[in-house]
Amino acid sequence: MSNAAEEILTIFVISDSAGETATKLAQATMAQYPTVEFNLFRKTFMSDKAILLKALKEAKKLNAMILYTMINEELVQLIRDFCQESDLFGFDVLTAPVLEIEKRSGVAPTREPGALHHLNKNYFKRIEAMEFAVKYDDGKDPRGFLEADVVLLGVSRTSKTPLSLFLANKNLKVANLPLVPQAHIPKQLWEVDKKKIVGLTNDPNVLNGIRKERMIAYGLNPDTAYSDIDKIRAELEFANDLYEKLGCVVINVASLSIEETASMIMNALDLEDHSYYTTEND
Amino acid sequence: MSNAAEEILTIFVISDSAGETATKLAQATMAQYPTVEFNLFRKTFMSDKAILLKALKEAKKLNAMILYTMINEELVQLIRDFCQESDLFGFDVLTAPVLEIEKRSGVAPTREPGALHHLNKNYFKRIEAMEFAVKYDDGKDPRGFLEADVVLLGVSRTSKTPLSLFLANKNLKVANLPLVPQAHIPKQLWEVDKKKIVGLTNDPNVLNGIRKERMIAYGLNPDTAYSDIDKIRAELEFANDLYEKLGCVVINVASLSIEETASMIMNALDLEDHSYYTTEND
Repeated sequence: MSNAAEEILTIFVISDSAGETATKLAQATMAQYPTVEFNLFRKTFMSDKAILLKALKEAKKLNAMILYTMINEELVQLIRDFCQESDLFGFDVLTAPVLEIEKRSGVAPTREPGALHHLNKNYFKRIEAMEFAVKYDDGKDPRGFLEADVVLLGVSRTSKTPLSLFLANKNLKVANLPLVPQAHIPKQLWEVDKKKIVGLTNDPNVLNGIRKERMIAYGLNPDTAYSDIDKIRAELEFANDLYEKLGCVVINVASLSIEETASMIMNALDLEDHSYYTTEND
Repeated sequence: MSNAAEEILTIFVISDSAGETATKLAQATMAQYPTVEFNLFRKTFMSDKAILLKALKEAKKLNAMILYTMINEELVQLIRDFCQESDLFGFDVLTAPVLEIEKRSGVAPTREPGALHHLNKNYFKRIEAMEFAVKYDDGKDPRGFLEADVVLLGVSRTSKTPLSLFLANKNLKVANLPLVPQAHIPKQLWEVDKKKIVGLTNDPNVLNGIRKERMIAYGLNPDTAYSDIDKIRAELEFANDLYEKLGCVVINVASLSIEETASMIMNALDLEDHSYYTTEND
């Protein structure tokens, strides 16, 4: 018998739409096994019975685990039967919560594939938020502060740009401003509601490490003023003083991913993620 | 008895991390019921028993449906028992796929909350990809074409910027170039492997509508050259000619969301989403 741990495990994501939900779940699952090697196949836009069956046969051949999000009942049944007959592991991600809502509301689901991605009002708001984030990144235009849902402040390498883009995906308009001690603070910042401002900070030693690596990546000497620990401390002090004056929320991103920081920002500013969900009344 | 459809349905997302997976599932579920009103509460970073219990009691009070992703077995059991005793609907999103991998691989999961968001090599690649997308958006610097995993071409309003940002979230470096008939095509474009280029196109009437709306949003006359249907046809023709010369993949985004277009691009260019997943060997 071969050592199972050395085999490559195959996961099939099968979806009648873009497969975002099941892919996310597959990734969360795989992340629990850093020593296991995986092959992830995405079978998306599966709305045809014959094409779906072909994908299932492929999964069987590879003895794959199947994670699926399908809204068509007939196709769900097809996968369920196939998995049972072929003794394949299939996990139906969507059916249980969808049926529970039908039971509670007395309303039938639309059963439209990709309903999550309808080009509705919220969708276009999200597109707008993404364009907003690019336009008002890096303090490019301080007028953005007054239109933004969130204004991010922070010294270099506190994840301002990725955080802005990530929050834009949740329909939030984000502008950000890099802080350097010598920099002029745009007057618009003082006009922003402090409940919309987040000051990002970091540990001096973490910043020192990140910045050194960045210099090395640029082919430069790692020990420049940019990575000097005393200069970094002065920068952080300047930033923290400003945050205190503004009375804004402060988050130390030292050990946080952007997902975690974004979630904390939404909790702290009492913001909701309405990116994918809209009622007909909206 | 009140009309159930008029009540607000409450969904709790409970997670020991940022709750991205369960939130996505909640959104996909809600999207099936455009006439039902929902309240979505995210209870994230729940790693403490007492705090978790408080959230569960709140859910019970609101008769909420619970979608949860927890990796600590004791906390999973706590939610399971609570839901059973209180007759609440609880859907465990993560346990079944995690256990299946343990069974197949013989390896135990790390059981670390937020393993999806570890600040590993892939995480930093994603941050880099996001910064790359902002840097090389809108043809700002054609040198980006040669470093990019994907080069997006398209006339105005074919979702180049949001698509670039969305793909960046999947660790792909994307540069994009807006096409206008008078524009100079940077010489670097001809040096790019055509298997990395995607030409975006759209239906003239769809573009006409979008652009008119944009003009109205800007407070301008909707009937400008920008929204003129003949001008739009000429632009699209110019773009399609270029795509043919380049021999690149062409996608018509007329009825597609960015998630759908992104999924098609990944299928067409044979790219994988490795954003959240890495083995220790990577």
